[in-house]
Order: sequence, then structure tokens, then C-alpha cells
Amino acid sequence: MSEIRTVFFISDRTGITAETLGHSLLTQFDVELDQVTLPFVDDVQRAQKAVEQINQVATETGFRPIVFSTVVKSDVRDHLRQCHATFFDFFDTFVAPLERELGVPSTHTIGQAHGRGDDRLYDVRIDAMNFALNNDDGGATRQYHKADVVIVGVSRTGKTPVSLYLALQYGIFAANYPLTEDDILETGLPKVLHPYRGKLYGLSIAPERLQSIRQERRPNSRYASIQQCQLEVMRGEGLFRQNRIPYLNSTTVSIEEIATTIIHESGLKRRVH
Amino acid sequence: MSEIRTVFFISDRTGITAETLGHSLLTQFDVELDQVTLPFVDDVQRAQKAVEQINQVATETGFRPIVFSTVVKSDVRDHLRQCHATFFDFFDTFVAPLERELGVPSTHTIGQAHGRGDDRLYDVRIDAMNFALNNDDGGATRQYHKADVVIVGVSRTGKTPVSLYLALQYGIFAANYPLTEDDILETGLPKVLHPYRGKLYGLSIAPERLQSIRQERRPNSRYASIQQCQLEVMRGEGLFRQNRIPYLNSTTVSIEEIATTIIHESGLKRRVH
Repeated sequence: MSEIRTVFFISDRTGITAETLGHSLLTQFDVELDQVTLPFVDDVQRAQKAVEQINQVATETGFRPIVFSTVVKSDVRDHLRQCHATFFDFFDTFVAPLERELGVPSTHTIGQAHGRGDDRLYDVRIDAMNFALNNDDGGATRQYHKADVVIVGVSRTGKTPVSLYLALQYGIFAANYPLTEDDILETGLPKVLHPYRGKLYGLSIAPERLQSIRQERRPNSRYASIQQCQLEVMRGEGLFRQNRIPYLNSTTVSIEEIATTIIHESGLKRRVH
Repeated sequence: MSEIRTVFFISDRTGITAETLGHSLLTQFDVELDQVTLPFVDDVQRAQKAVEQINQVATETGFRPIVFSTVVKSDVRDHLRQCHATFFDFFDTFVAPLERELGVPSTHTIGQAHGRGDDRLYDVRIDAMNFALNNDDGGATRQYHKADVVIVGVSRTGKTPVSLYLALQYGIFAANYPLTEDDILETGLPKVLHPYRGKLYGLSIAPERLQSIRQERRPNSRYASIQQCQLEVMRGEGLFRQNRIPYLNSTTVSIEEIATTIIHESGLKRRVH
């Protein structure tokens, strides 16, 4: 018998909502858990299979599993509820009070949350992604006039993942400008950035962390030396402060937190919600 | 007075969980809504400002706003609850029953859900992103032996956004192989893919949609002609079927749905949850 509880995330589509909500709740508990996502449970037959899988875990482990469900269809849900588990039903919990509040019945539509929506929204995300890829670190293209934000920082501070996250998640056009060794040794803001002062956002990082990242890429190079990392970080941050460029230290921060902080502090408008 | 209700998503960190919850629920209602996210509300002062903003909307519109909150800290939450709004408190609703079920008190930790976690998980996402970028459409690198999945399709079927989404969201190493005109005219699977049959996944698309996407990029080219699009799609799907490569038609499907379908059907293991 295992002491580890099992958690199931069940959805009639991607499972992203069920996982996001379940993960958020479970971060509040200091317990070890096995996690299983069952997406695309959209008919009674699949619900039946899910119930069998859950009941099997209950029997094998001797513990009732915990189920987080965002299933919308009543017949599928009624079936799922018969499993031997503690069942948290996100829709059931909030939909009834929302119906009262909004004064209209819910439409019971499946999979809208992470579904396609209209082609226009899909196209915006793809355009933003292509923009980020074309205006990335050292790329030939510098369409900064079209950018919502230009992320500035020395090599390996997280500019690319943040730009791509902003693009795919929010349809925001993020270019990024790598501070080169020349930039770092010059005084003043690189000339190419002058016209775009208002949309610059800086990323910095702890020199020790930067060294460890660079060491992975180019072991024992000058690029990865602690002296070089300290110099670049110090000069980069000096540049941000002198030019009043808002910046954050990405050392202990996730991609999501950097992205949402930039949106928040720069007052960026999302094209996709 | 506006007839449009306003919805606030309030969080002590990124707001991603609050938005996910709220968006999912609100897709169930056919009503027009103004949406406002208030992230980083992590002290009483910021809570007070949020309350003022909510109450102002209530006064101006004559409607009580709807608030979705994932705030964890009790004093901040107690403050927020005083606003003139219908207040949906995500943690309050689910944490108490979870405490009973798990037999331990919640830790009341802020911002774990989309926080950094350990460096290892951050590094996996970045490595997977770099892998996707280096093994993208026509790239020189083809480290297919290291890939979890190799996405195959003609130009503009969504291979790149799906690869990047799999990387950033789940830490999955996704390479992608563009079916060229030569591949399409040949019979049989391109030679370079032979050793990796077991990890191929195909993307197809409606020829009319493909034409419209290509037309944006290269107007009135042969590449964007309906004849060419029809030919490529037909031959591509033929290749998938002959070689028993699982594939999906991405025409009306979101990036999230394609990514989660590939994970589900190919049984991929996520490195990040």
C-alpha cells in the first residue's frame, strides 16, 4: 500500500483549467501526490473508463483519490460522480451562483476556455510569435517601431522565453535587444534604442546564476566566467538606472511572473485574454 | 449607465489562476463583460486600492461587479471582501474541504502555482524551448534522436507554435519537420524520418485555410494558390495514412488543444506539470 495520494484532473477538453485550478489548490498543501490528467472525457463511455481507473487506484492504494473536474455535460458528470473519490466539481460549485448573479442560464458549452475562438485571435498569437522569433536576440530584423515592448538585457537573462510567452499567451508583440559587450563598455543607451525609450523593459539576474547558465552553454569560456558575468550585470543594471528603464531581477522568478510583471508595470494591453 | 457587467480577477501574484477560473466559468454565459485583472495585490494597502476601484465601477455602472479572487493571505482577503461586488473566493471555497480530506492544514503560501519552483524545472523549460527553436522548420539542426515527438506537416500548419507551447508549458522536447515540395512529390516517408517513425505526429489543415494563411505571407504566389495548397494537403495526409502516422486537422483547433491532443495520443510524459 502506498502512502501517496493520487489526484485526477478530469476534463471534457484539454484539461488545462482543471490542472491549473487543482495545482493552485494543491500548492497550499505540503503533501506528496501522484497526478493524473484525463483529458477529452466527453461521453459516458469515456466517463465509465475514467471511473474504473479511479476505482482501481482506490483499491490498490487503500486511499480515496481526489478528483478535480471541469466537465460540463450533465450526463458525463453524473457518471463521474459515482467514482470512489473525493470529487471537486469546479463548474457545479460556481455556475449556479453565477446564473443567479447574471440572471441568465449557463449555456453548457464544452471546451470554450482553451478552444480556438475565432481565427482572428489565433492569427494574433501566431503573428506575435513570429514577431518575437524575428526580433529575437541578435536577429537581423529590428522592427522595434511595431513592438509593444522591447526587452533589454545581457545574454541569458530570459529574454527569449519571456518574449515567446507574452506572444503565445497574450498576443503581445515583444522584441528583445541583447546588450552586447560593446554596449556594456560604452556609456549611455545604445543608439538603436533611443527612439523607443518608452517601451523598454530590462531584465537582470544574479551573476552567480548567470555564470551557471552560461557555463552549461560554453564551459570554461570567458563568457561564462564569474568576472565577466559580474561586469555585465553591474553595467547592465547601471544602464537601466541611468536611463530610468524599469527592470526586474529574474533570478528566482518564473517566466509567467516576469511576463505578468512586465504587462502590469508597463501597462501593456493584451490582444488575447 | 452601461449595461455591461465588469469582472475583476484579483490575485496576490500573476493572476493566471484567477483568470483561468473566471474565463472558464464565464465562457458558460452568453453575456458581454468588461474584464480587469488586478495582479500582485499582496498587502492591505493594495487591497484597499482594489476595493476603491471596484466600488467606483459599481457606482458608475449601477451594477455590482463580479470578483474572482485567488488571494491567499487572510488579512488581504478580509479587506477585499468589503467591496460592493459578488465575490467568488476560490481558496476559501476549496481549501477547507481539502484540509479535511488531506488531514493537514494548508500552508497559506502565496504564488506557488505560477512561481519559479526549483531551478531545475525552469531549466527544463528553457532547454525544451531552445530545442524547439533549434529543431524548427528548415533549421540546420535535426536532433531527432533527442526529441520526445517530431511534428510533421506542410508549411503553415502550426508546427512551430505547437512545438514552442509543448516546450514552455510542459517541458516536452518537440522537433518539427516541414514536408517540402520534394517530400510531397516523392512516394514514401522522407528518409531522414525513417528511424523516428515511433515519434512522428502529423498536422494537417483545410486547404482553404492554408491558402488564406499563405496568402498573408506571400500574396498571389504559387505557394499560396489553392491548387498548390490542395495538392500539398492531399499528399501530406496520404503520407500520414500510408505510414500510420497519427495526425490531426488543425483548422478549427487551438494551439492548446493541438498540444494536449498530441500529449494524450502519443502518451508523452511531461517534465513540467
